[in-house]
Amino acid sequence: MLDKIEIVKPTEIEKRSMEIITSELNGRTWPEPEFSIVKRCIHTSADFDYADNLCFSENAAMLGVEALRRGAVIVTDTRMAWSGINKKKLAEYGGEAFCFMSDADVAQEAKDRGCTRAAICMERGAALGKEVIFAVGNAPTALIRLYELIKAGEVKPALIIGAPVGFVNVVEAKELIMTAGVPYIVPKGRKGGSNIAATICNAMLYYKG
Amino acid sequence: MLDKIEIVKPTEIEKRSMEIITSELNGRTWPEPEFSIVKRCIHTSADFDYADNLCFSENAAMLGVEALRRGAVIVTDTRMAWSGINKKKLAEYGGEAFCFMSDADVAQEAKDRGCTRAAICMERGAALGKEVIFAVGNAPTALIRLYELIKAGEVKPALIIGAPVGFVNVVEAKELIMTAGVPYIVPKGRKGGSNIAATICNAMLYYKG
Repeated sequence: MLDKIEIVKPTEIEKRSMEIITSELNGRTWPEPEFSIVKRCIHTSADFDYADNLCFSENAAMLGVEALRRGAVIVTDTRMAWSGINKKKLAEYGGEAFCFMSDADVAQEAKDRGCTRAAICMERGAALGKEVIFAVGNAPTALIRLYELIKAGEVKPALIIGAPVGFVNVVEAKELIMTAGVPYIVPKGRKGGSNIAATICNAMLYYKG
Repeated sequence: MLDKIEIVKPTEIEKRSMEIITSELNGRTWPEPEFSIVKRCIHTSADFDYADNLCFSENAAMLGVEALRRGAVIVTDTRMAWSGINKKKLAEYGGEAFCFMSDADVAQEAKDRGCTRAAICMERGAALGKEVIFAVGNAPTALIRLYELIKAGEVKPALIIGAPVGFVNVVEAKELIMTAGVPYIVPKGRKGGSNIAATICNAMLYYKG
């Protein structure tokens, strides 16, 4: 069976994958950098639903790219997304990635206040006093808290990547954040995840246009 | 719009999600612990394709659970999967999770030998001399190298979670590993990912039967 394996150099695998994805999109196209984000979400999941479910507010992807190039930081609600973000590339622009989920005081505060750790994490991100891209890959409660913070004038995110995954309040939280009046990239519906949140960040970091 | 959000306690969200998934599976069922794994893959991705694509060799899920309870270690090919594995729970059984992908000497050796870092990582895992569950969430080359190591008698994994995602050699590498003569859990086809590899580990760690 080993003879069925195509010999492709490690460095060529991603290029080849993107060619296959582009080909299977059958001529569908998006303005850049949206197109790079759509392709990278499919690359990460092998799920072409992302060609249909990704929603961008006006110019959101380019606003994200520009923010990163100015040194914006990324705040995420999962350690997995944090792990997947290319922090070396981010640091080249002067940025940094934060995830407060494992902080002991976050767990305690969430318990005391009866909310999720993810909601507290968003508050910590807002309190950084920096230009922030919020990359939510897990908790709809993070998006709900962000909505409340925005409406209270406590934070003005450069971009919200609203990609929690799941079955309880996920669809509703995404719909909510798309009305918050800030730039967003959201895979509508139930799908998303920390891999999707991270890959959207990386697509913007890698974008060369 | 906030009034569309259902109030569910953080601790109840996962339970509720699993009820929704079970309900939408319309009576389809699997023997445990396979069922827990199927449900958790869907929970992580919101993608019901996992109900159709997950393949288990005979008794694979229970063999994995038993290995973990004996203190087997987990070796994975991505930092994201490593991050997603519940290492606290794993440690309760005496296990540990390893990912060698970021090790400087792994990068150098991969460059010198013209192979992927993931292939080297599998060799490092094999050389641990421990009972190992390999959890592959990214690189088909990891599965190919594992196949070669098994055939050469250099490793006898307790279980292989073969869940790379993508478009180049992924389908073929999964087909290959299913012929290696060791227990496997594999989402056939292109889908998978570090989130899926991690969640399969966690489903086995959380299994109570």
